[in-house]
Amino acid sequence: MVLSGVEVSKHDSKETCWVVIHGKAFDVTEFLPEHPGGMNIILKYAGKDATAEFEPIHPPDTLDKYLDKSKHLGLVDMNTVVKAEEEEDPEEADRLQRVEDKPLLSQCYNLMDFEAVAKNTMKRGAWGYYSSAADDEITLRENHEAYHRIWFRPKILVDVKEIDTSTTMLGTKVDIPFYVTATALGKLGHPEGEVVLTRAARKHNVVQMIPTLASCSFDEIMDAAKGDQVQWMQLYVNQDRAITERLVKHAEKRGCKALFITVDAPQLGRREKDMRAKFTDQGSSVQSGQTTDTSQGAARAISSFIDPALSWKDIPWFQSITKMPIILKGVQRVEDVLRAVDAGVQGVVLSNHGGRQLDFAPSAVEVLAETMPVLRNLRLDRKIEVFVDGGVRRATDIIKALCLGARGVGIGRPFLYAMSAYGDEGVDRAMQLLREEMEMNMRLIGCTSVDQLNPGLVDVRNLGAHVTGVPTDNLGRKVYDPLVTPAWKPPKSSKL
Amino acid sequence: MVLSGVEVSKHDSKETCWVVIHGKAFDVTEFLPEHPGGMNIILKYAGKDATAEFEPIHPPDTLDKYLDKSKHLGLVDMNTVVKAEEEEDPEEADRLQRVEDKPLLSQCYNLMDFEAVAKNTMKRGAWGYYSSAADDEITLRENHEAYHRIWFRPKILVDVKEIDTSTTMLGTKVDIPFYVTATALGKLGHPEGEVVLTRAARKHNVVQMIPTLASCSFDEIMDAAKGDQVQWMQLYVNQDRAITERLVKHAEKRGCKALFITVDAPQLGRREKDMRAKFTDQGSSVQSGQTTDTSQGAARAISSFIDPALSWKDIPWFQSITKMPIILKGVQRVEDVLRAVDAGVQGVVLSNHGGRQLDFAPSAVEVLAETMPVLRNLRLDRKIEVFVDGGVRRATDIIKALCLGARGVGIGRPFLYAMSAYGDEGVDRAMQLLREEMEMNMRLIGCTSVDQLNPGLVDVRNLGAHVTGVPTDNLGRKVYDPLVTPAWKPPKSSKL
Amino acid sequence: MVLSGVEVSKHDSKETCWVVIHGKAFDVTEFLPEHPGGMNIILKYAGKDATAEFEPIHPPDTLDKYLDKSKHLGLVDMNTVVKAEEEEDPEEADRLQRVEDKPLLSQCYNLMDFEAVAKNTMKRGAWGYYSSAADDEITLRENHEAYHRIWFRPKILVDVKEIDTSTTMLGTKVDIPFYVTATALGKLGHPEGEVVLTRAARKHNVVQMIPTLASCSFDEIMDAAKGDQVQWMQLYVNQDRAITERLVKHAEKRGCKALFITVDAPQLGRREKDMRAKFTDQGSSVQSGQTTDTSQGAARAISSFIDPALSWKDIPWFQSITKMPIILKGVQRVEDVLRAVDAGVQGVVLSNHGGRQLDFAPSAVEVLAETMPVLRNLRLDRKIEVFVDGGVRRATDIIKALCLGARGVGIGRPFLYAMSAYGDEGVDRAMQLLREEMEMNMRLIGCTSVDQLNPGLVDVRNLGAHVTGVPTDNLGRKVYDPLVTPAWKPPKSSKL
Amino acid sequence: MVLSGVEVSKHDSKETCWVVIHGKAFDVTEFLPEHPGGMNIILKYAGKDATAEFEPIHPPDTLDKYLDKSKHLGLVDMNTVVKAEEEEDPEEADRLQRVEDKPLLSQCYNLMDFEAVAKNTMKRGAWGYYSSAADDEITLRENHEAYHRIWFRPKILVDVKEIDTSTTMLGTKVDIPFYVTATALGKLGHPEGEVVLTRAARKHNVVQMIPTLASCSFDEIMDAAKGDQVQWMQLYVNQDRAITERLVKHAEKRGCKALFITVDAPQLGRREKDMRAKFTDQGSSVQSGQTTDTSQGAARAISSFIDPALSWKDIPWFQSITKMPIILKGVQRVEDVLRAVDAGVQGVVLSNHGGRQLDFAPSAVEVLAETMPVLRNLRLDRKIEVFVDGGVRRATDIIKALCLGARGVGIGRPFLYAMSAYGDEGVDRAMQLLREEMEMNMRLIGCTSVDQLNPGLVDVRNLGAHVTGVPTDNLGRKVYDPLVTPAWKPPKSSKL
Repeated sequence: MVLSGVEVSKHDSKETCWVVIHGKAFDVTEFLPEHPGGMNIILKYAGKDATAEFEPIHPPDTLDKYLDKSKHLGLVDMNTVVKAEEEEDPEEADRLQRVEDKPLLSQCYNLMDFEAVAKNTMKRGAWGYYSSAADDEITLRENHEAYHRIWFRPKILVDVKEIDTSTTMLGTKVDIPFYVTATALGKLGHPEGEVVLTRAARKHNVVQMIPTLASCSFDEIMDAAKGDQVQWMQLYVNQDRAITERLVKHAEKRGCKALFITVDAPQLGRREKDMRAKFTDQGSSVQSGQTTDTSQGAARAISSFIDPALSWKDIPWFQSITKMPIILKGVQRVEDVLRAVDAGVQGVVLSNHGGRQLDFAPSAVEVLAETMPVLRNLRLDRKIEVFVDGGVRRATDIIKALCLGARGVGIGRPFLYAMSAYGDEGVDRAMQLLREEMEMNMRLIGCTSVDQLNPGLVDVRNLGAHVTGVPTDNLGRKVYDPLVTPAWKPPKSSKL
Repeated sequence: MVLSGVEVSKHDSKETCWVVIHGKAFDVTEFLPEHPGGMNIILKYAGKDATAEFEPIHPPDTLDKYLDKSKHLGLVDMNTVVKAEEEEDPEEADRLQRVEDKPLLSQCYNLMDFEAVAKNTMKRGAWGYYSSAADDEITLRENHEAYHRIWFRPKILVDVKEIDTSTTMLGTKVDIPFYVTATALGKLGHPEGEVVLTRAARKHNVVQMIPTLASCSFDEIMDAAKGDQVQWMQLYVNQDRAITERLVKHAEKRGCKALFITVDAPQLGRREKDMRAKFTDQGSSVQSGQTTDTSQGAARAISSFIDPALSWKDIPWFQSITKMPIILKGVQRVEDVLRAVDAGVQGVVLSNHGGRQLDFAPSAVEVLAETMPVLRNLRLDRKIEVFVDGGVRRATDIIKALCLGARGVGIGRPFLYAMSAYGDEGVDRAMQLLREEMEMNMRLIGCTSVDQLNPGLVDVRNLGAHVTGVPTDNLGRKVYDPLVTPAWKPPKSSKL
Repeated sequence: MVLSGVEVSKHDSKETCWVVIHGKAFDVTEFLPEHPGGMNIILKYAGKDATAEFEPIHPPDTLDKYLDKSKHLGLVDMNTVVKAEEEEDPEEADRLQRVEDKPLLSQCYNLMDFEAVAKNTMKRGAWGYYSSAADDEITLRENHEAYHRIWFRPKILVDVKEIDTSTTMLGTKVDIPFYVTATALGKLGHPEGEVVLTRAARKHNVVQMIPTLASCSFDEIMDAAKGDQVQWMQLYVNQDRAITERLVKHAEKRGCKALFITVDAPQLGRREKDMRAKFTDQGSSVQSGQTTDTSQGAARAISSFIDPALSWKDIPWFQSITKMPIILKGVQRVEDVLRAVDAGVQGVVLSNHGGRQLDFAPSAVEVLAETMPVLRNLRLDRKIEVFVDGGVRRATDIIKALCLGARGVGIGRPFLYAMSAYGDEGVDRAMQLLREEMEMNMRLIGCTSVDQLNPGLVDVRNLGAHVTGVPTDNLGRKVYDPLVTPAWKPPKSSKL
Repeated sequence: MVLSGVEVSKHDSKETCWVVIHGKAFDVTEFLPEHPGGMNIILKYAGKDATAEFEPIHPPDTLDKYLDKSKHLGLVDMNTVVKAEEEEDPEEADRLQRVEDKPLLSQCYNLMDFEAVAKNTMKRGAWGYYSSAADDEITLRENHEAYHRIWFRPKILVDVKEIDTSTTMLGTKVDIPFYVTATALGKLGHPEGEVVLTRAARKHNVVQMIPTLASCSFDEIMDAAKGDQVQWMQLYVNQDRAITERLVKHAEKRGCKALFITVDAPQLGRREKDMRAKFTDQGSSVQSGQTTDTSQGAARAISSFIDPALSWKDIPWFQSITKMPIILKGVQRVEDVLRAVDAGVQGVVLSNHGGRQLDFAPSAVEVLAETMPVLRNLRLDRKIEVFVDGGVRRATDIIKALCLGARGVGIGRPFLYAMSAYGDEGVDRAMQLLREEMEMNMRLIGCTSVDQLNPGLVDVRNLGAHVTGVPTDNLGRKVYDPLVTPAWKPPKSSKL
């Protein structure tokens, strides 16, 4: 039986809410309070066709997976369905103009350049989701700036004609010591989503970690890999362990080479920029009567899926259901690295989730500098592979992490930005730039291969310095007359 | 006998000064030099009706308490009284427009957001009074920034499904480890004044500390409490100890659960922003002939009420007149905490009075980090409850203080700002936001209850660093050509 | 014989240069290359009346002292003299408007406020001379900011009803522990010059140090003192010791109570702001043919007066010609303080000449913190009085210096700025503000008299930290999206 | 046989590319991929006269040296040759106006002033090449700012009448302890190129180091020297050692007094500003089809000339082919200084190549402070002369380096900027200013000759501090209300 648009349109409220996606109707009334994006966004499409909004941010198998079959109402006669009118966004024309005027790809000379372009060409909401972080975003920035407190002690007069940047991660040979770490909702940045990253990873022979919260389905991403391309799986553990077990076993069967269990997100973080980006005027009419706080709603909803009770005692169970090496992603103190060794896992990712979870969590590279000497003292540094992610933007950052003992570094947002701004070519160029920087900088510190990188090549005395400085808005500075350079002749002068 | 406006209007000078308030005349000639707000502000209303100006910033029982009955001149025929014409404030229309355009309450995602709204919607003088601080306001900002020098060392893989943020302060069970600390003149921000905070404290089950300098009367604030709601009393000690004794005994009888004696304000601080906000053009005509410096006058006047001679030897007397636990508010060095233990008081608040008294006084949290190890070494940490206030804006701040050993933290201005900007709903949301942040951040550092918070979870190595930096306005930087990101195509481009 | 203007006007070149001052002609041809202000400024007035330019910056006895009698050519018939036309300064009208619009004196609440007013009301050249300092002016700013690295450890519950800020310097009882230190060319800021400071010093019972390079004559300044007002003498030592001896003996005879010998200026510093302020367009026509570098010329000229050969072995000679206590002004390292004790002088001023001499010279207060423990260890701290100057703007600065062991602090520029902006009333208010701050802040750290100030009341752990910070103009920050507070409703909104 | 323009114009593609220079045709087809500046820049002139573009940036003997004689095609009839039309640069008119309005030379009071003028008067590409540095240019700025973390401990009461700033470097007596270090492509800044610097060096009796990559030919620069003027040779070592041997022997024969072998540039650095400056719109048409990355191309091309395999084992060979003292330029760690001593070279230049190679390489002065105590401990400090370069802008910088043990400092860019802005007179004044600063500052720290400079005169405690600071864009600061100075009267006021 084909439903009519008129029938669907009657279910346009919190009490009974149907939406049409790809020509089929779904009853999402009961799902409303659990929707990670909040209830309001669905209600906007209640009784209407929501395909355009739904598509970019949900994997194709979402409804099959998360909505009980009884709520799948069947085909709809699309000619009779009301399309939700697009909200007129006054900024959209400006944005499209900027997309047209954006710099040429060849003008991007480093990873920050892609971010500059993405910031001005992505849709506000998408940019907000990708770039936001916890609270005052202090850890977000600390992640990159911590690398700026590490300085080199370069060697000279070494024959550096041939540079080999390759290394091995969890048994896989890679060409450069980074991997594409898992990031959610790739289709916010590019219509094809995560498979763009898959193709780039293959071209540069690096590993891609597949996110649980991808826009593409897991299988789509696996399918996009070619030849013996290696992929890893990132896992948010579900309260329903049966679902988790199914996902893990499926990944192993499909050929995933490692399981990265996220341990720093028992609850997904509050990211205020993201909240501000989502805010729309419709809120104004419901303010007085609002019953649920959507910000809390999102956190709660997602908590219903990610298990906040995940703990060390779950590790043996994971070891029992898969032969993939297990790596804990999001370790943040040396004590927990030691516990990870005890638990028999194969690796840890020192990470604070890109600054998106706990503000004032330390940077991975600072935890690394604290961790490796302890591991070496206990002769445990060969028992476990230590990765870091967060804030890596330059090959010098990679080299610093490797000097301190990291096996490899994860890079996430920069590739999303490259993808969002320039698609496949963007990610390709981003990786190419890193490769060139890497080769050059290895040469300039006097190392020809990754195994030569060692702590003696870096100065980390200041890594632990978290200084705010005495406030500088004081009257003494306010009345200070700034220094000037010579004055130019006044008349007819063009602007400097 | 009812006085006529004509009669009143004759008393319009420093030599004989009457004012009308709520339909009654008062002779304030002798009181003029003692007025905490300075003499000039009263003289503006000499011989006129001052109700509109008087009302928001004086508790209703002020005249009964501070003006001798002989100066209460009785009823006035209001039809014959000249109303002081409102000064035309050219900024007022702008301000009212901003009030109209202010963000929705639901757009406020953290405590700073309320401050941003309050700053632009409050009257200039009220904002000046609330936000001002001593000298260059360096301690004001240090109070918050000191927390930025404390970083977390989070634990992972702890079952954090259930989070309990409750704790006990001075025997009272509270839901979150903060209390509403005492702040003066609540009606500057909201016509109902401090009772707005009373209602919010009750809703969130936290304690309110009642200020001596409240706009509402003490009894109004006590009356606003419901059920077994707990309130504390903040006390400025009067030179006339009989008045102080009366206040304390009244508070105890009304059910106050603790007495917080302010010890950091033997003289109220000079706050230049506040002075600037009060400045009006009338000053121009009296400049040459001015006999009293109003800034000094205010300080002196208030000194005649607060006792600068208050000292350690007064403590036994307080212990003799009340059974309430006694807490010293404004302790600023470990030596004085030890002395407080010796004196047998039940607690201390490490505080610098919100940066309003002595500039370059250290932040409470830095004193805390210095104090607790000493107390623990001497096994005195259970003998006394240590609170901190000043600069707390995020739940991470609260957690840091608790990790270091604080029993609870006081929050003042942020709730005033929330109240000033959005009234009851504002304060409610501010507390709700703190609660959500608190729950989430406890989860993210791997603690399920307040008693699990401990010094091992924070990195305080940099807390004592008060760096100003070598001045950065040097010619080397001046001629440095700033880095750029890729250039956009020049023509037709919209603004980035 | 009275000279005619025609006769005078013939001497208008470098070869023969006469000028008229106060109705008398002078032949300054030979003096041209020695003029501290450079030759060009005189040549502008060659053959003309230079009184208006000469008067404000030279003591009345200058020509008698420095120009041989043979060059005094006698009276001129002023009716026949050409007046140099004033250069039209396009900024002057603006400046006069600013003078008219300047804030009321009662709007100045601290010493920086006077600087803000002076900066915008003084003539460019005068402001340039007063405010300039060496090279990048880093020491200039460091002088004040060093105090910002000193934090208090205040005591509470001390009876601070009565505060006594008086102390004794070199045997003189003063009301507040500062003195007016010597600064040159007072008439640049005020037509009456240094005697304005004399009057204010008397009113507040503090000592004034009389500068060698005053605009007023030494005797004028001495004469301006009333009753038993104490004054000190600051001395630049002349290569011709006979002149120096005459000055010193005269000062002693006139009743000066101490001799401060400047030891940090064997050559007067280069101050680029001052040079830039002096630059005028006339330079453009002489550029290619310029034979002397005026900047160098000024330095050389002044070197011919101040003796760069002054050394430790001259001290006994000074001790032989005067009974005044001798204090070395400009000591900059602990080793030299010890040597001063050995030399038997009565005091030292730790000073870097207000940052006007050597850039990157340390602040006096940092040298003080290094010096006093050494003196105390050697039990020499009672043998010598240690003063500091430079960067003192707040009473908290004074208190910090006294806690660390200074006997008193010198304050220079702030009083010049107060004088330049508001004359006698300005300096009076500046001192009054310091007095009020002093009293209040002593109260707030729990000290009732100056002798109670001690090192335990300050935290100087960071005083020696001279950090520049890793450069912050990096691409990571450049692409970082700044935090925002809630957005206001867009339409009709007035500016925030 | 004279070629016709028509014939030449046929060779205008990658497949066959001729260019005309100074009236002669050259076949550069095979050279295209090796051109250090990339292939595209040549192709713009394919089949045309390239003299105007070629001339400023290639030594006159370039074609003879690097292009096989078989590719020299002989004379061209210039009347028949098409001149490449100048690209219309919309910024050029503005630049020329700025050149006209530039400050007078006498308005430049320090080395930074020249940079300010050069930045605004040089062509964009030339400025880009001179001023650019590696990655985020952090080492570039650190080079100067490191000196700001060194503070003086000046001596007083020393007879400083006579100052001698002369010293000896590698046996040569010089008047001031700096030398003109080697920098490439002098004709970008001035049509005469490096010989301008030769003349200035002679005038001030300092040594010039002749760069391998000069715009003038080596012999032109040697020829420009007069009398016994001393010059040194800077060498990039060619993969073809026969070429290197020829250059070295020729230099020795011509009278060069020392050989500085660059050891910090096995590959020339990526400098993004330089790349951005070179970018032109032509790129837009080739973007999709671009086959070579020009940035990489440049690096590769230059690698084909500089030998990345240069290593310690090559040193004996250099010692065998020349009797000149050998100095390693670009040493960056104390271990390598010790190794240099072992290798028997006469000196090292601690240098990071002006920040142009490896970002986060330490400043030379920091390496110096680490190196000299080790050398002194091992009694090796007399065995080798240690120079530093990078970031020197003030005589105080020079004095600091000498206090720490440097024999002399190299200065590069500042003289290029002075030359670019004002030619011979500019460099002369720049050196004169340094000399004046040097003399004055030696006086002010109490030293009369260079050998008196010693580590006790500087405070280097903070030199190693590389602090980034906790990010300061936090909401607490955002809502903080900045301090203000007194408000001016509103009406009629001119701008402050």
